[in-house]
Amino acid sequence: MSSSAVSFAAQNHLRFLDELKAFLRVPSISTLPEHKADCRRAADLLAAELKRIGMENVRLVETEGHPLVYADWLHAAGNTGGPAARSSSAGWKPTVLFYGHYDVQPPDPLEEWISPPFEPTERNGNLYARGAVDDKGQVWAQVKALESLLAAAGALPLNVRILFEGEEEVGGEGIAAFVASKPPGLKADFALISDTELFAPGLPTLCVGLRGMIYTEIEVRGARTDLHSGMYGGAAPNPFVALTQMLARLKDEDGRILIPGFYDGIIPPSTEELAAWRSLPFDEEHYRITEVGSSKLVGEPGYTVLERTWARPSLDVHGIPGGFTGAGAKTVIPAKALAKVSMRLVPGMAPAKSFALYKSYVEKIAPDGVEVDVRLIHSGDPCLVPVDNPYIQAATRALREVWGRDTVFIRSGGSIPIVGDFARHLGLPSVMMGFGLPDDNLHAPNEKFNLKNFELGIVSLIRFLEEAGK
Amino acid sequence: MSSSAVSFAAQNHLRFLDELKAFLRVPSISTLPEHKADCRRAADLLAAELKRIGMENVRLVETEGHPLVYADWLHAAGNTGGPAARSSSAGWKPTVLFYGHYDVQPPDPLEEWISPPFEPTERNGNLYARGAVDDKGQVWAQVKALESLLAAAGALPLNVRILFEGEEEVGGEGIAAFVASKPPGLKADFALISDTELFAPGLPTLCVGLRGMIYTEIEVRGARTDLHSGMYGGAAPNPFVALTQMLARLKDEDGRILIPGFYDGIIPPSTEELAAWRSLPFDEEHYRITEVGSSKLVGEPGYTVLERTWARPSLDVHGIPGGFTGAGAKTVIPAKALAKVSMRLVPGMAPAKSFALYKSYVEKIAPDGVEVDVRLIHSGDPCLVPVDNPYIQAATRALREVWGRDTVFIRSGGSIPIVGDFARHLGLPSVMMGFGLPDDNLHAPNEKFNLKNFELGIVSLIRFLEEAGK
Repeated sequence: MSSSAVSFAAQNHLRFLDELKAFLRVPSISTLPEHKADCRRAADLLAAELKRIGMENVRLVETEGHPLVYADWLHAAGNTGGPAARSSSAGWKPTVLFYGHYDVQPPDPLEEWISPPFEPTERNGNLYARGAVDDKGQVWAQVKALESLLAAAGALPLNVRILFEGEEEVGGEGIAAFVASKPPGLKADFALISDTELFAPGLPTLCVGLRGMIYTEIEVRGARTDLHSGMYGGAAPNPFVALTQMLARLKDEDGRILIPGFYDGIIPPSTEELAAWRSLPFDEEHYRITEVGSSKLVGEPGYTVLERTWARPSLDVHGIPGGFTGAGAKTVIPAKALAKVSMRLVPGMAPAKSFALYKSYVEKIAPDGVEVDVRLIHSGDPCLVPVDNPYIQAATRALREVWGRDTVFIRSGGSIPIVGDFARHLGLPSVMMGFGLPDDNLHAPNEKFNLKNFELGIVSLIRFLEEAGK
Repeated sequence: MSSSAVSFAAQNHLRFLDELKAFLRVPSISTLPEHKADCRRAADLLAAELKRIGMENVRLVETEGHPLVYADWLHAAGNTGGPAARSSSAGWKPTVLFYGHYDVQPPDPLEEWISPPFEPTERNGNLYARGAVDDKGQVWAQVKALESLLAAAGALPLNVRILFEGEEEVGGEGIAAFVASKPPGLKADFALISDTELFAPGLPTLCVGLRGMIYTEIEVRGARTDLHSGMYGGAAPNPFVALTQMLARLKDEDGRILIPGFYDGIIPPSTEELAAWRSLPFDEEHYRITEVGSSKLVGEPGYTVLERTWARPSLDVHGIPGGFTGAGAKTVIPAKALAKVSMRLVPGMAPAKSFALYKSYVEKIAPDGVEVDVRLIHSGDPCLVPVDNPYIQAATRALREVWGRDTVFIRSGGSIPIVGDFARHLGLPSVMMGFGLPDDNLHAPNEKFNLKNFELGIVSLIRFLEEAGK
């Protein structure tokens, strides 16, 4: 770690942190229309910072939703990227495509935050704020790694393109469409994605597998209008009752999904991968108590927690809006009900096929007296990254140096649809190098980013880029 | 209808209607804390009007919640009321206790109202507003009947006490406690309640049976905090999934309630009563199309719609607050979920026993991994009114004269807990004489009161009081 970029990062760390706080103060909640302008503010802030540190061709790419932020620096050799360039050019340098997202989840329930979600607060060695770790803190670590390299050497050790998005939390349609159009400006050799976590504190980790997902809505309609439950109770269909009956038939009490054909085609992890998972420092009881905090864990019998969350599909209900939700009592049979339901998919499952199976099953189990609409809100492919490419190898060398330990390869139960898009449309393997921790409260109140991980994350990224550019 | 009070009502009808509109403009939504002041405004308005028309001892009776409105006029003979007075006094006049409620249901969903809920609007011979028929319009009909009698004769044909409440839509705890204390000021011979409807347009109707109810909440808690459904889906308990599984086990798809012992002790209607119901002008298919507007009716096999809604218990889910209810997608496993569930009870069922059976069953079927709380929000006894008392007889004479047809005796699926309280604590039979119509959209958008029924309702009440005072 004798790199002068690393020294620059160390000397400027307090400034980096202050800047991150300013970034976190922008409530760029992509799913809420009233925060549209805030999303653009966050994009503008990012673009201005990229310009300031010396990145070039900085611009916002407009989408149907929130804008993308593009930038590049292509003055290393072989700057067009790709295997053709590599084979024909001496002193060839690869091109990396940075990815992260500046949008965040809604902060509700607000009353459970100890400090306000958009007023970043340091406490117990952590920085608390919505987006602290998912993903603004990690985006900022990427930007600060680039700043450190440019400031220390006046140049980068490889070619860099950047594509940040503002719709990751709402399905990322804008970036998906942009990537699917295969713009020449995205030509690269690999992608670097910082939106994942360490398996345990101090344990360098690369994520090499992600679940896919389908996010859906089921709308159920009964009577033409809301009805008095006294007058009509016992004769009028109740969409909430119908919906709960249908939802209860999606999954049995053991957690097994009941949609016919849903599990068909799943590719299980290899024996070696399962063996490696078993050697990870993971205790299900500790996980239950410290991370989940429930009286019991649930899920499919016969699978470990890591298998259930990394290599098995799951189904969750996120909310059932509609009806009477105020305090007190309202004796109404609501005319309609809605459920927000998503499923996580694993390798071997295709979102379109899974949704078709789900929709047809839900329509089939709808009780008499109600009409049902099943809608796909968004989806993402599951993905597996091969671990034998030179960028994963470079990453493990850098991480070993910074953290003093061997890297573990894990999967994530979450979905980063862009990883599938980069593979499918641009032929890029992804290095998922992230610095979150399992208890960082992603998507929940009191989201945080460990301050040490922010600091070592920047150093890790600097050293990785230096290694990858060798 | 030669009564001079009837003539006064006819001459002043437009004014009566304007006054009712002013009353309806007060958004006295009892369940919403932010409308507490509006509830008091409605009570004040009622009290001022009662004073103006010549009622005496007008006062607000404070409760833990919204105030009661009391008034009386006791200058007819035998003014203490009760059988003792009756037997010992020549020229004895009975005492009637008027009841109605000035509070209303929340107006949501607002976007489905054709005209604003608190801006009363005449359309197609109806007056549209929240509370138009439930119950402000009917309360106003009572007040205007008294005004007409006092204005025409300077006296009332019998002794009158009034007790209006402002918490009917939230369980009526205040009035229940007041009545249970048996205050001497409520001594009377019968109660007159205008909060029901005609069985069909133009068909004079007395309601002689009501369902009781228990209104409950089920709270389900899983993880300590909201979790990311990608990271934890498949291992962390999801309270929404658990709740839907539990709710689905409360009632089967035929509408039969599955709580063990729930149906025990139910007293079915007599053969005569069932025969009378069969002769009512009621067509299930017409009801389905015009009132409910669903593709099919639901409910227990083997019972007609009138039996299912009048003489069988029912169970409805009113809403499932919590979780993510915004537009778009949030991939969260909520830490908790809540369901608002009520059951209607019929003669032979006791709220306390029904709730105990329900609570114990719900606790028993809670899946692993979640904690469950079952709470009773409020309850009311079912009731049946004997039809052989002189006040019911007087009512049928008055209704026959005003409407030109014989009265039908029906029940209502709704609950008016005060009827049970009046019987239990004060020994009063109730005359439930109301003028709503089956399609008045109670508790729903576009609630209305038929203008002709408002007019004939006032006349019916005038003539009933004259008959009852003979």
